[in-house]
Amino acid sequence: MNTFGRIFRLTTFGESHGPGIGGVIDGMPARIPVDMDFIQAQLDRRRPGQSALTTSRNEGDKVEILSGVFEGLTTGQPIGFVVRNESQRSGDYDNMRDLFRPSHADYTYFEKWGIRDHRGGGRSSARETISRVVGGAFAMLYLRQMGVTVEAYTSQVGSIRLEGDYKDYDLTKREANDVRCPDEETAKRMADLIMEVKREGDTIGGVISCVIKGLPVGLGEPAFGKLHAQLGAAMLSINAVKGFEYGRGFAGVEERGSEQNDVFVPSEGGVTTKTNNSGGIQGGISNGQDVYFRVAFKPVATLLREQPTVNIQGEETTLQARGRHDACVLPRAVPVVEAMAAMTIIDNILQNKIWQN
Amino acid sequence: MNTFGRIFRLTTFGESHGPGIGGVIDGMPARIPVDMDFIQAQLDRRRPGQSALTTSRNEGDKVEILSGVFEGLTTGQPIGFVVRNESQRSGDYDNMRDLFRPSHADYTYFEKWGIRDHRGGGRSSARETISRVVGGAFAMLYLRQMGVTVEAYTSQVGSIRLEGDYKDYDLTKREANDVRCPDEETAKRMADLIMEVKREGDTIGGVISCVIKGLPVGLGEPAFGKLHAQLGAAMLSINAVKGFEYGRGFAGVEERGSEQNDVFVPSEGGVTTKTNNSGGIQGGISNGQDVYFRVAFKPVATLLREQPTVNIQGEETTLQARGRHDACVLPRAVPVVEAMAAMTIIDNILQNKIWQN
Amino acid sequence: MNTFGRIFRLTTFGESHGPGIGGVIDGMPARIPVDMDFIQAQLDRRRPGQSALTTSRNEGDKVEILSGVFEGLTTGQPIGFVVRNESQRSGDYDNMRDLFRPSHADYTYFEKWGIRDHRGGGRSSARETISRVVGGAFAMLYLRQMGVTVEAYTSQVGSIRLEGDYKDYDLTKREANDVRCPDEETAKRMADLIMEVKREGDTIGGVISCVIKGLPVGLGEPAFGKLHAQLGAAMLSINAVKGFEYGRGFAGVEERGSEQNDVFVPSEGGVTTKTNNSGGIQGGISNGQDVYFRVAFKPVATLLREQPTVNIQGEETTLQARGRHDACVLPRAVPVVEAMAAMTIIDNILQNKIWQN
Amino acid sequence: MNTFGRIFRLTTFGESHGPGIGGVIDGMPARIPVDMDFIQAQLDRRRPGQSALTTSRNEGDKVEILSGVFEGLTTGQPIGFVVRNESQRSGDYDNMRDLFRPSHADYTYFEKWGIRDHRGGGRSSARETISRVVGGAFAMLYLRQMGVTVEAYTSQVGSIRLEGDYKDYDLTKREANDVRCPDEETAKRMADLIMEVKREGDTIGGVISCVIKGLPVGLGEPAFGKLHAQLGAAMLSINAVKGFEYGRGFAGVEERGSEQNDVFVPSEGGVTTKTNNSGGIQGGISNGQDVYFRVAFKPVATLLREQPTVNIQGEETTLQARGRHDACVLPRAVPVVEAMAAMTIIDNILQNKIWQN
Repeated sequence: MNTFGRIFRLTTFGESHGPGIGGVIDGMPARIPVDMDFIQAQLDRRRPGQSALTTSRNEGDKVEILSGVFEGLTTGQPIGFVVRNESQRSGDYDNMRDLFRPSHADYTYFEKWGIRDHRGGGRSSARETISRVVGGAFAMLYLRQMGVTVEAYTSQVGSIRLEGDYKDYDLTKREANDVRCPDEETAKRMADLIMEVKREGDTIGGVISCVIKGLPVGLGEPAFGKLHAQLGAAMLSINAVKGFEYGRGFAGVEERGSEQNDVFVPSEGGVTTKTNNSGGIQGGISNGQDVYFRVAFKPVATLLREQPTVNIQGEETTLQARGRHDACVLPRAVPVVEAMAAMTIIDNILQNKIWQN
Repeated sequence: MNTFGRIFRLTTFGESHGPGIGGVIDGMPARIPVDMDFIQAQLDRRRPGQSALTTSRNEGDKVEILSGVFEGLTTGQPIGFVVRNESQRSGDYDNMRDLFRPSHADYTYFEKWGIRDHRGGGRSSARETISRVVGGAFAMLYLRQMGVTVEAYTSQVGSIRLEGDYKDYDLTKREANDVRCPDEETAKRMADLIMEVKREGDTIGGVISCVIKGLPVGLGEPAFGKLHAQLGAAMLSINAVKGFEYGRGFAGVEERGSEQNDVFVPSEGGVTTKTNNSGGIQGGISNGQDVYFRVAFKPVATLLREQPTVNIQGEETTLQARGRHDACVLPRAVPVVEAMAAMTIIDNILQNKIWQN
Repeated sequence: MNTFGRIFRLTTFGESHGPGIGGVIDGMPARIPVDMDFIQAQLDRRRPGQSALTTSRNEGDKVEILSGVFEGLTTGQPIGFVVRNESQRSGDYDNMRDLFRPSHADYTYFEKWGIRDHRGGGRSSARETISRVVGGAFAMLYLRQMGVTVEAYTSQVGSIRLEGDYKDYDLTKREANDVRCPDEETAKRMADLIMEVKREGDTIGGVISCVIKGLPVGLGEPAFGKLHAQLGAAMLSINAVKGFEYGRGFAGVEERGSEQNDVFVPSEGGVTTKTNNSGGIQGGISNGQDVYFRVAFKPVATLLREQPTVNIQGEETTLQARGRHDACVLPRAVPVVEAMAAMTIIDNILQNKIWQN
Repeated sequence: MNTFGRIFRLTTFGESHGPGIGGVIDGMPARIPVDMDFIQAQLDRRRPGQSALTTSRNEGDKVEILSGVFEGLTTGQPIGFVVRNESQRSGDYDNMRDLFRPSHADYTYFEKWGIRDHRGGGRSSARETISRVVGGAFAMLYLRQMGVTVEAYTSQVGSIRLEGDYKDYDLTKREANDVRCPDEETAKRMADLIMEVKREGDTIGGVISCVIKGLPVGLGEPAFGKLHAQLGAAMLSINAVKGFEYGRGFAGVEERGSEQNDVFVPSEGGVTTKTNNSGGIQGGISNGQDVYFRVAFKPVATLLREQPTVNIQGEETTLQARGRHDACVLPRAVPVVEAMAAMTIIDNILQNKIWQN
C-alpha cells in the first residue's frame, strides 16, 4: 500500500511522467514552525541534475503545500503537497511501451495490474521518493526541536569502502562533495569510479550508512514492532535496496556473546552501556545509545547500452535506453535514507507518548 | 504492536513464565483441512530440549485450538490458540528481579513501561515465537495446497559457512541433523563448534538462509509494501536478528548493472529470466522465480558465566545466569524463519486477490 | 475483522459451542492494578441465567487471564484471556445443521464461507460479546482512575419508554432490578412485558441509553475519526443493534438552528455551553460536556415457536427452536454497551496523547 | 485520522480557505475507464451556488487528477487529486479569529491543537466532503460495472416527511428538483420551508434516506466489521449527522420477533426472504436484498443572525456571521451520503474477494 507509518503517516501518489508527485502527511504535531527553505533544501539534495554524477534530467522539484499549515505553523491537520513534473521527455520512452526492461518493475507491474504507465517506470520510478523526502523533512522539523539528528552518508561504492565507522568522521563534511561521503579522499575515488562506470554506459551499487543520535530510551514496540524491524522495512522499501543490517549486523554473527554483549555501567543518574554493539536497540527498543545501520543498494538497472530482452508478446528483442539516468544512485539516495529514518523515528516518538503517564 | 499482517493477521500474547503463550489468527481462508499433526510437528522443531544442542528446558509445547475450526476444517473465523507453559523454574530468575542482563530487553522494557516480568525475559523471551510457529503452520496448510514451499536452513554458524547456494543441496536433508544444515559434513562441524562454545559458557551467532518456491507472479505492493520490505520486517522482528538481505544482497553492491541485471527470455507461453540475481522480486513484486534471502542472528545474550552489570538502582553488580539456555539459537530458529516467511506470503497471496478480476 | 480499536485494541475469538470465548487486549496502559472481582462482576452482569428474564443457559463465565498481568499490575504487554464454554447442549442444535433460521446469520455465513458452525450460531452468537465485556472492564479500570464514568440503562422495551432523560434519574439504581432501568416502576412494567412476550414464545426489542461523564475536552479526530462515528460503529457492531443516535439525534432534525445551537458561556477559568444539545461532541471532538447516546435493539430472532424457513437445499421446511434463549436482549446488553463505550473512550484518550506536548 | 476504508482507501486533506481540497485514493481496481464527466457531475451536485436553496458561495469545484490514470484507464496505482479553492472571501471571517461559533468545531479544535485556521471552519468545514465525493465517484465507476446502484434522497426537512418508503417512488426523479426529494409535491413544500427559514436567518435539519440495490450476498465481516457498522461509521463521519438507522431501525424496537423476522422462502436457484425488515443485512453480512438506511442531519450551526458567544479569552461577546451559508444542508448532502455509501460498498466487495476461492 502507499501509506507509511502508524501515527505519523505519509500517503504518496504520482508517476514519473504524470502531472506530479505528492502526498498527504497525517499526524504531524501542531504548532511546529514550517521552515520552507529547509524542506526545499532536502528536495534539492535529492534533485536530479545537481552534479555531474547524477542524471541530467533537470527538474526544479519545487514543492507546493496545499493544506495543514496556517500562518507559518502546522495545525495538526493533514498536510497535502505536490511537486509538479516539468522536465518530462516522455518520447524517450516510446520504444519501451511494449517491452520489459531487465531488473525493472515493467514485467511484474504489467502482470499484476494488466496495465502500466511505461513512461520512465511510471509509479515504480524512483521519483516517488520525492514524497518521502518531503515527509521526512516535516519529521525533521519536529526531531530537531527534540535534539534528534539523522545523518546518512555514502560508505561504499562498488568495492571502494570508507574505512572505520561513523565516529571516525565529521559527518557534516558529507555535504562537501557530490558523493556525500564524509572523507574527501575516499569521496574522490568513489566519484572517479562512478564517472568511469558511467562512461561505459554501465552502473554500480554501494552502501549507505546512517546514524541517529539523541534518541530517548523507549522507542519501539515488542514482538512485530521492534524499532529495527520498522527501520528495516522503511529502508527496504526504497527503490534498489537489497539489504539492511544494524549494530554489528552480518559481521557480528561470527562473534561470541562474550565479545558482543554490551555491558551495563552506571552513568550520571542512570545507566549506560560500555560498548554499543547492539546499535542502540535492545529487545527492539531504543536504549539511548546511537542507532546506526547500513543499507545495500544494487547497481541501477537502466544501462545506457544495448541489452537483450523480450516484448509483451514474449518475443526476443533488444533494448536501447535513451532517457537520462544515474550511473549510481547512492549520492541522491542519502537524503531518502535520512527521510525514511526520520519518519520512522517521529512515528515511534509519537507512538511512545501513548505509554507515558 | 503485537499483530502481524494485514489480511492474514496473527496477534500474539504470553510471557515465558506466565500461564501460557498463544494468539489469534484472523483471516485464515475457510474450508482448509486442519492437520494437527503437521502443526504440532512444526512446534516440535522449535521446542526446547529437542537435542543436545539446545536448552534443556523441557517443554511439551502442546497447542490447544480454541476456535475457528469445525469438524476438522477452518471456518474463516478467528482461530484462538494457547500453549501452556509447563516446565517453569521461575526461581532461576529470582536474582534477576533487580538487575539488567547485558544485551537483553530488561533495561529498555523497564524504562519504557516502569514494570517488567523479569522471569525469563517475560514478554521479550523467545518463547513468544511459539505463536509465530503456530500461525506459520496454518499459513503453510494453505500454501501447500497452492504448491508453494518455504524452506529455511542454517547456512552459517560462527565462521563456518555452507559453501554454494540453495540449489547445490537437497534441502529436505536439513532435518537429518540437529543443526538443520542440509550438508551433513558442514552440519557436523557446526555442531562441534556449538558444543565447544557451550562448554565455555559462551554463545555464537550465525546465518539462516531461506528459499520460497512456487510463487505466482504479482505478490507485493508498490512503494511501502514491497514484498522484500515485508519479508525483511518479518525477519527483523524475530529475536536476535541483526540483518536481512535478499537476492545478491550486500555482496551485490560491488557488481555492475551489466553483471547483475536479470535478462528476460521467452519461456513456454510467457516470460522468464535467464538469471535470478533479483531474488525473485522486481520492483517489490514477485516475478515467479524463487525468492531467497539470508537472515543474520547475533550470539545469544545469556551467557552461563559471570558478567558485570548494574542493578535497577544503577549500582554495579555481577550476573550469574542460571536457567537453561541455548548456546546457539540457529537450529531452533529455522522453523521460526519459515513461519514468518509463510505468513508474509499467505498475506500477500490474499491481498493480491483484491487486484484480480 | 475481529479487532476493535486503534491504540487500545481488542481482538476476539470463539464460538458459542466451541471450547471457549476469548481475546487479546493490546495497548493497555502499564502499572494499572487489576481488580479481578470488578472484571468478573461485569461478566456476571452479562451472564445468562442471572434472572427470570434471561435465558436459562447457566454458564459460570469465569475468565482466566493468560498474560500481561504481573504481580497484580498490568505490564503494558498484551493481555490474553479465555472464558471456557461449559453448559453446552449442542444437541439442541442438531436440527439446525441443514436449515437457515430467519433473521439470523445462518444463511449469510454459509454463503460467504461455504461452511458454518451451526451450533448456537457459532461465531455469530452473542456469546462473542463476552470478550467485549472483558475488554471493556480493563478499559474501565483505567477510566475510573481518570474520573470517567460510563453508565448505560434500559430506556425502552417495546413501547414502554422511560420518561425524561438521564439527568432525571439516579443511574446507580439501574442495577436494583433485572431490567436495568433506573426507575423501579417503569422497570416493573418492562419486566412484565418481557415475561408476557416470553410466555407467548415471542420476543421484543428496545432501546439502551448511555451517558459518559467526566471526559476531557479534545477526544476524537477530524474527518473520519469523529468521536461519535467511532461510538456509532462500536454500538452498531453489537448483535441485534439497528440504530444509533447521539445528542438530539433523529428528534432534533425538526428543530431550527436557533433552538438547537449550544451557546458558549464563560465558566470558572474557561468556557462551557449553556445547553448540551450537541451531546458533548462538536466537530467530532468532545467538548467536556456529558456524551450521551441511544442504541436501538431489534427483537431477538430466535422464537420458541414454530416458524417456516428453507433448508440448505433451498426446500421449504419448518423450524422449532429448542435451546435456551432470551425473549429480550436488553437487560444483558447493558454491560455490553458500556464495555464498547469504555473501549472507544480509552482508545481516544490514548490517541489524544499523541497531540499533547 | 484522515483516511477512510481498509482496502479501497481515501485519504483527504484541505481547508475551506486554503489553496485547495484533495486526497489520495488507494486500492482502486485497475483498468476501469475514468469517466471525467461523471466525476465532475457528482461534484456539481455537491457544489455551492447550484440553486436558490444553497449558499451563494460560487465555486467551480473543478477536479484535477494528478496520478493513477493512464490513457483514460485506472492503473491500480494511487489516484491523487485536488480541487482548488477559488471563491474565498476570507475577510468574511476576520471577526471570528478570536471567538467560538456555537455548535461549531471552533472551540474543540482550538483546545485540542492549540491552533486553528478560523477561516470558514478550516479543516472542519464541510468543504472537506469534496474529497469524499471524488472518492465516491471513483467507487461508483466500479460499482456500476457490477450492477450496484446507490441512491440517496431527502426524505424529511424539519417536520415535513416523505410518505411511504423508497419502493413507492421513482428515485431518479430526486434530481428533478433542488431539494433532491423524489416526490415533486413534497419537494416543493420542503423548498418552501427552507426558503422561509432562510429568510429568518435561521436553519433547519432533516433526514436523508439511501438505498443500495444489486449487492451480492456476503459483504461485511463478523464481530466489529459488520456491514451496517461500517455504513453507520461512514454516515456519522459526515458533518452535521446525528443519527443512523437501517432496516426497521428505531421504529422496529416496538415490534415482536414474530412480526419483524424475515422468513426465508425458496427462489429460483436459491433462497430469498419474504420481507426485508432486516434492511438487507443479517449477522452483519449482506443477504442479497436491498440495503436501506436513514441518516439524521441537525440544523446548520451558522445562523445569519446575531448570537451570543464567548471569545478565546473566555469573555462574553456576540457573533454576527457574514459569509455565505446554507439554511439547510440536505440537498447538497445527498451526493455525500451516496459517496460514503459507495466507498463502503466497494471496500467490502474488494475485501470479500479475499474469502473467495
